[in-house]
Amino acid sequence: MAKVTFLPIQTTIESGEGEPLIKTAMRAGVHINASCGGAGVCNKCKVILEEGRLTGERLPDGGWKACASFPEGDVVVRIPVESQMDRKALEKREPARASWMRRHSEGVFYKIDPVVKKLEISLPEPTLQDSVSDLERLQRELAQGKLQGMSLEVDSQVLGELPHALRDRSWSVVVSLMDSAVKGVQRLIRVEAAGTSTAHQAVAIDIGTTTVSAQLIELSSGEAIKEVSDYNPQVSYGEDVISRMEFARRGDGAALLQEKIISCLNGLLSELLGDGMESLGFISIAANTVMTHFLLGLDTRFLRASPYVPVASHFPPIRAVDLGLSVPGHVRVFCAPCVASYVGGDIVAGVVGVGVHRHPDLTLFIDIGTNGEIVLGNQDWMACAACSAGPAFEGGGIRHGMRATTGAIEVVDIHPETYEPMALTIGGRKAKGICGSGIISLLANLFTTGALDQQGKFRRDLSTPRIREGRDGWEYVVVEAGATATGEDIVFTEADVENLVRAKGAMFAGYLTLLESVGMGLEDIERVILAGNFGSYLNLEQAITIGLLPDIPRDRFFFAGNSSLIGARAAACSTEVMNTMDQVAAMMTHFDLSENPRFMEHYVSSLFLPHTDASLFPSVKSANN
Amino acid sequence: MAKVTFLPIQTTIESGEGEPLIKTAMRAGVHINASCGGAGVCNKCKVILEEGRLTGERLPDGGWKACASFPEGDVVVRIPVESQMDRKALEKREPARASWMRRHSEGVFYKIDPVVKKLEISLPEPTLQDSVSDLERLQRELAQGKLQGMSLEVDSQVLGELPHALRDRSWSVVVSLMDSAVKGVQRLIRVEAAGTSTAHQAVAIDIGTTTVSAQLIELSSGEAIKEVSDYNPQVSYGEDVISRMEFARRGDGAALLQEKIISCLNGLLSELLGDGMESLGFISIAANTVMTHFLLGLDTRFLRASPYVPVASHFPPIRAVDLGLSVPGHVRVFCAPCVASYVGGDIVAGVVGVGVHRHPDLTLFIDIGTNGEIVLGNQDWMACAACSAGPAFEGGGIRHGMRATTGAIEVVDIHPETYEPMALTIGGRKAKGICGSGIISLLANLFTTGALDQQGKFRRDLSTPRIREGRDGWEYVVVEAGATATGEDIVFTEADVENLVRAKGAMFAGYLTLLESVGMGLEDIERVILAGNFGSYLNLEQAITIGLLPDIPRDRFFFAGNSSLIGARAAACSTEVMNTMDQVAAMMTHFDLSENPRFMEHYVSSLFLPHTDASLFPSVKSANN
Repeated sequence: MAKVTFLPIQTTIESGEGEPLIKTAMRAGVHINASCGGAGVCNKCKVILEEGRLTGERLPDGGWKACASFPEGDVVVRIPVESQMDRKALEKREPARASWMRRHSEGVFYKIDPVVKKLEISLPEPTLQDSVSDLERLQRELAQGKLQGMSLEVDSQVLGELPHALRDRSWSVVVSLMDSAVKGVQRLIRVEAAGTSTAHQAVAIDIGTTTVSAQLIELSSGEAIKEVSDYNPQVSYGEDVISRMEFARRGDGAALLQEKIISCLNGLLSELLGDGMESLGFISIAANTVMTHFLLGLDTRFLRASPYVPVASHFPPIRAVDLGLSVPGHVRVFCAPCVASYVGGDIVAGVVGVGVHRHPDLTLFIDIGTNGEIVLGNQDWMACAACSAGPAFEGGGIRHGMRATTGAIEVVDIHPETYEPMALTIGGRKAKGICGSGIISLLANLFTTGALDQQGKFRRDLSTPRIREGRDGWEYVVVEAGATATGEDIVFTEADVENLVRAKGAMFAGYLTLLESVGMGLEDIERVILAGNFGSYLNLEQAITIGLLPDIPRDRFFFAGNSSLIGARAAACSTEVMNTMDQVAAMMTHFDLSENPRFMEHYVSSLFLPHTDASLFPSVKSANN
Repeated sequence: MAKVTFLPIQTTIESGEGEPLIKTAMRAGVHINASCGGAGVCNKCKVILEEGRLTGERLPDGGWKACASFPEGDVVVRIPVESQMDRKALEKREPARASWMRRHSEGVFYKIDPVVKKLEISLPEPTLQDSVSDLERLQRELAQGKLQGMSLEVDSQVLGELPHALRDRSWSVVVSLMDSAVKGVQRLIRVEAAGTSTAHQAVAIDIGTTTVSAQLIELSSGEAIKEVSDYNPQVSYGEDVISRMEFARRGDGAALLQEKIISCLNGLLSELLGDGMESLGFISIAANTVMTHFLLGLDTRFLRASPYVPVASHFPPIRAVDLGLSVPGHVRVFCAPCVASYVGGDIVAGVVGVGVHRHPDLTLFIDIGTNGEIVLGNQDWMACAACSAGPAFEGGGIRHGMRATTGAIEVVDIHPETYEPMALTIGGRKAKGICGSGIISLLANLFTTGALDQQGKFRRDLSTPRIREGRDGWEYVVVEAGATATGEDIVFTEADVENLVRAKGAMFAGYLTLLESVGMGLEDIERVILAGNFGSYLNLEQAITIGLLPDIPRDRFFFAGNSSLIGARAAACSTEVMNTMDQVAAMMTHFDLSENPRFMEHYVSSLFLPHTDASLFPSVKSANN
């Protein structure tokens, strides 16, 4: 790997494979003006080569475009004066980031023992003296062997395949047995001739409000051998759960939403399994309460109104074909249990998936998705709450907000004196909008550079064309029209800031309310686990800067990634994990914040950057302070 | 009721309502020549009115047609000389008949406790403090009440109806709970709002090879409130189980047979329930092993070939909609367990339905249907066997054999000197053929009058045009062409006799083989129970005469009627009966007669009328002896 040294600040960092200089600079915390997102259009990102060789695009004045230049071996480049920040600004940039958690999915914490197991057995051939039926012959053998002392229930569809499976390979078969919810009861769901039996796989699925992710799991090892994802097609009928529930009430709305998610799952299953659908043993799904209700075709009407009652919070295994999934008839869908209308199976799966329930440390588990959910607790107790944070951190309700796809501004750095941005887009394409991580870095930078005050208002007195009064009030111009994909300015408005402040305020008030309910404070938190895909792109420092995360030692933060999917996968690999989810869902004390007066007080106090009570954020300083 | 006295034999009998004289005479054992079946065509059935008044048809010579004349008050009629038999012949005609059994279906022997029970409960309304899901609320209430200490499984489809059922009548609901095969486990299959809940009914069905009968049962009382029946439409693809299994092997044969029986059941269900399909709790079916396999879409290939192994002999409850039945989704089908390929759920249901298993007397249970099945035993043990008797006694393989429908000759009496017949048809219409009971009475009469010898050959030396050498060998003309519906003679051939002798021989050899296997003889039989619709039309004396039934005291014989349906109904009314069927099926020792050398010996000895060993039939005398 090539080493890149940036002058004048003397920072050296290894270049990533195929990484343009501007990305390397961003990782190093080195600011280079760039407002086209790295698309090579704005010509602002000039660097001067001092040592070594670069390939890429040169500028007419002899400099190189950082967004289109790549090191050939070690290089030293100089940031031109118009991009330079003084050392003081640089020093504020701590490189602290949350660590990735060692995942449960590595198979460390549970033994592979899925809810459906395959078992090979050989039967004595029938004779005139022993001419019991095929099924009884099989049951007798099971009763004498593996299932001694257990009860066996039989899926009626097994009967159809039974006589041929038994005779295909001289009475040696592989049976699939499913653990029943009732102790001591097994269910025979499938019989295959030995030798013709396919692999034993499961699919774990996280159905998010926005994104659906699925993993194909080899059940012998617990390994995820393939992962695919897709947008939740229900998005067309409402960005968030509330608008979708509204849609579901109208006419065939609910049926349509169910149909959409089923067809999405069918697509993912087919991508994962292709012609190998016969290998599928079962499906493990984790989803929030509303998504689970839509999936199962359950009425969501009563989720919405006080006292917010789900139809069910523990779901019986359901035959996949009954839901419309195009899979073999023996396949069951297991849904992770929910706690309440807005604390769903994704959270329970996440908490169990990352092992909050088996750790003595006081843990704050946070999922900032379309909605925000919080769990506080450890192996002995857990409290949870949903914060109606809204989708601002996913780009919802933000003027130029968008999902994290190609062309989305994902990271922004702002020059503390000139307020010139260094904006990078996903895929290095012309900017189309700003995604969640971009929004946070924008908000944090505008605040730390002093362009935004504690109340979330732009300073009106700065001599920069980037801050101006626009159509909708004051705004910051992130990318000028000429360099965008849309041909119009991409701006970040005071209204956007207000939405974000409300969203982070709701989250933060949630932490405080839960902590207070058990007589604790922020300082008592021993671990913060950031769940959701959002967590993985999050710049921890910036999230603390804006008051979205508590200002506690950085080494207490961990990214879990898609913990809901991790949990769904763990449940697929282990019946014990499934049972644990039931126990954890039952042990969680749910706080309904919507009518909680303490939450309202905390919320109001949190509508500042980072908070009214500055003592809660000792490490956060803005240029205004 | 009018009294009818027949002269010269001085027999007096009450006339049945709307009964023509000829039928009254037949019941009284009085012979009147009549060869048109009672259709008023042959003009042979003359009687002379001596006292009282008749209405009906007079003959030109002043006599009355017995088939078209009805008494108006008490009458005395004289049989003309051409119809008269001497007193000696009359004396042979004992009136002994089997009694009808007191039926289990009267609810005497089991308490009404069906496998699906309805239970009304009221739940506390949810509040913010108690906002558990609808399902948990219901489960909690059940666990504290009726289901204390039991496990509850939940049908996923219950979830869909749950929120509305709970809220429709302020949290009072009627739940349907199904006993699971596993002890201590109940399954929630349905929730209705209290007050809107429908009746609680079941349908019991007997699927015979030829006829399908169904009863609608009110589960509160166990009463059958409606009964319907239909031919088994599979008949078009084979009269007997063997030919249908043959058909099933070809192409989509099996699927077609399943489709046919399902559509037949749908028709019967719709006749029974009409718009009230919601009242249906479940379906209880008894059928022979082959019919059960066809119903469930199971391969029958292995039933046919040694060692004759069914796919299953105990069947898990099956969702009716999965079979294609047009009923609500909660409805399950329970099939009576089978013992072997040719001793099926109809026999097990029959044996349990009539209570063989709870009686100390040694009982011979006989079902002479398309196939013949025999059970020997009592409350302590049971042995069973199938005799490939063939469908001769249902008219199959008999030149003019037919089913028992309008126009079928159902009873025949033959004049011992003139060999003139007195033949009556069902519905008094022109004869189309001869049904089972007619065949037996024909065979018995031909034998007792001496027209047939022990070997089943017609006497060649009789001076009657009724016995002649026809197209297919020697035959007896039952009805001449001019008086039949078909315009051709209806005859009874030596080949027919041979088929019947083989059929009754197989049955009789079966009795002897089973008895011998437990070291017993015919004299040890304390009860004979005749099952099947066939039994109820059977003239006991004649059946003994031809050697179809053992020659033991007549008061030991009982008709059970459609015992399979009686059993299916008992199973519908009582889980205990269902469980008893499983136990009885398991306790029955099955004898495979097809490869049993003792059976073959008995069979060969039984190929005579009534038997080679005349000492086995002390009361049977033919005119030849």
